[in-house]
Amino acid sequence: MYFTPAELGASDLAGRTAVVIDVLRATSTLVEALANGARSVFPAQTTDEAVRLAQALGREDVLLCGERRGLKIPGFDLGNSPREFTAERVAGKVLVMSTTNGTPALAACAGAKRVLVASLLNLGAVVEELAAAGEDVEIVCAGREKRFALEDALCAGMIAAGLRSRLGRAPRTNDAAFVALALARRAAGQPERWLARSAGGRQLREIGLGEDVAYCAAVDRHAVLPRLKERQVSL
Amino acid sequence: MYFTPAELGASDLAGRTAVVIDVLRATSTLVEALANGARSVFPAQTTDEAVRLAQALGREDVLLCGERRGLKIPGFDLGNSPREFTAERVAGKVLVMSTTNGTPALAACAGAKRVLVASLLNLGAVVEELAAAGEDVEIVCAGREKRFALEDALCAGMIAAGLRSRLGRAPRTNDAAFVALALARRAAGQPERWLARSAGGRQLREIGLGEDVAYCAAVDRHAVLPRLKERQVSL
Repeated sequence: MYFTPAELGASDLAGRTAVVIDVLRATSTLVEALANGARSVFPAQTTDEAVRLAQALGREDVLLCGERRGLKIPGFDLGNSPREFTAERVAGKVLVMSTTNGTPALAACAGAKRVLVASLLNLGAVVEELAAAGEDVEIVCAGREKRFALEDALCAGMIAAGLRSRLGRAPRTNDAAFVALALARRAAGQPERWLARSAGGRQLREIGLGEDVAYCAAVDRHAVLPRLKERQVSL
Repeated sequence: MYFTPAELGASDLAGRTAVVIDVLRATSTLVEALANGARSVFPAQTTDEAVRLAQALGREDVLLCGERRGLKIPGFDLGNSPREFTAERVAGKVLVMSTTNGTPALAACAGAKRVLVASLLNLGAVVEELAAAGEDVEIVCAGREKRFALEDALCAGMIAAGLRSRLGRAPRTNDAAFVALALARRAAGQPERWLARSAGGRQLREIGLGEDVAYCAAVDRHAVLPRLKERQVSL
């Protein structure tokens, strides 16, 4: 388990399954969008790359999505609030998306054999898949502007706890997983409270998007498991 | 609070007091060496730099110290075990020291107004100084090979808890400090047990240096507060 992508060494993910987490809000939004019928999501590192990619895709059914400082990028179709990604808006669409922490985290996992996208919204689906696959997994938290983020560590700990309970044994853990498991135990049953007190949660409230916090705290809202494959995220 | 130096932005420490922690073992060893009468310690990033620096200092009372993979660097006088830094060995000496995680962490704090060196061995002295100074402080954990290290987070949390109890109010906290405080609460009174289960503690046992773990877990063994100033650490 890694609390930020910066902790990853060059070959740490080689041949392995990586699980990427950005609870507030990129991976929650990816889960929501795909659960609501979006065909796929292309992550883009920069606003420019997003615009170029959308132009290259050149179809009418492409939506430009993303945020900077939490707010929708000017001129884009959607921001990074999962509540925006309703079936009415995204069903059948291809999305191009650029966010501050989530997109770089997905890019940092490019060297993995498989990349799964996790959030509280699809926690159970992630645990089931990992338990069924039975292979070692590396959980990569997006963090917040290169720093430790409480909500991602909590989600990572809840995945590790779910896996342990499902397998009936402790998964291979490192120092980060040890702390994340302790965090998950303390937060048992009330992730929303913990998301709300995180720096990310507080910032969302400050910019008027406090409702996103409760939305992203809804464990198992969707039983979907997005994967990153050939530069796009899809089910 | 930062769980690894990589989380620091370029100007995060400007004008501030930084507290550097590498419990297993660099900052514990610095505290031990200076408490036992070493005159000062020059951190060196590489083995070569350490050797050159020792030559430049050119005195008979210089000791070359440091480790790679936990073991003494071949040809050096001392490794990185605090138990080696007895008064008999180090009193009156100038030390040049290069370690895997501690030295880079000290270097990462170069932009701070003041840099204090903390470990469990001098926990109380650190808390007293910070409480008396009454200024905002940034605690920087060395981590372990660029990753989160349990023992550093625990020590950081114990400093934050001590400061809170001493000031009668919560210090300014971020997500990392929130988790570190929770960790300190869980580990209350038994830091040795937690150091022993950390990746760093396990590695020390594997290379036959398990006794260092208990040594570094001894809270308040020394009432000294080393500071980094003009490229050397001294009292």
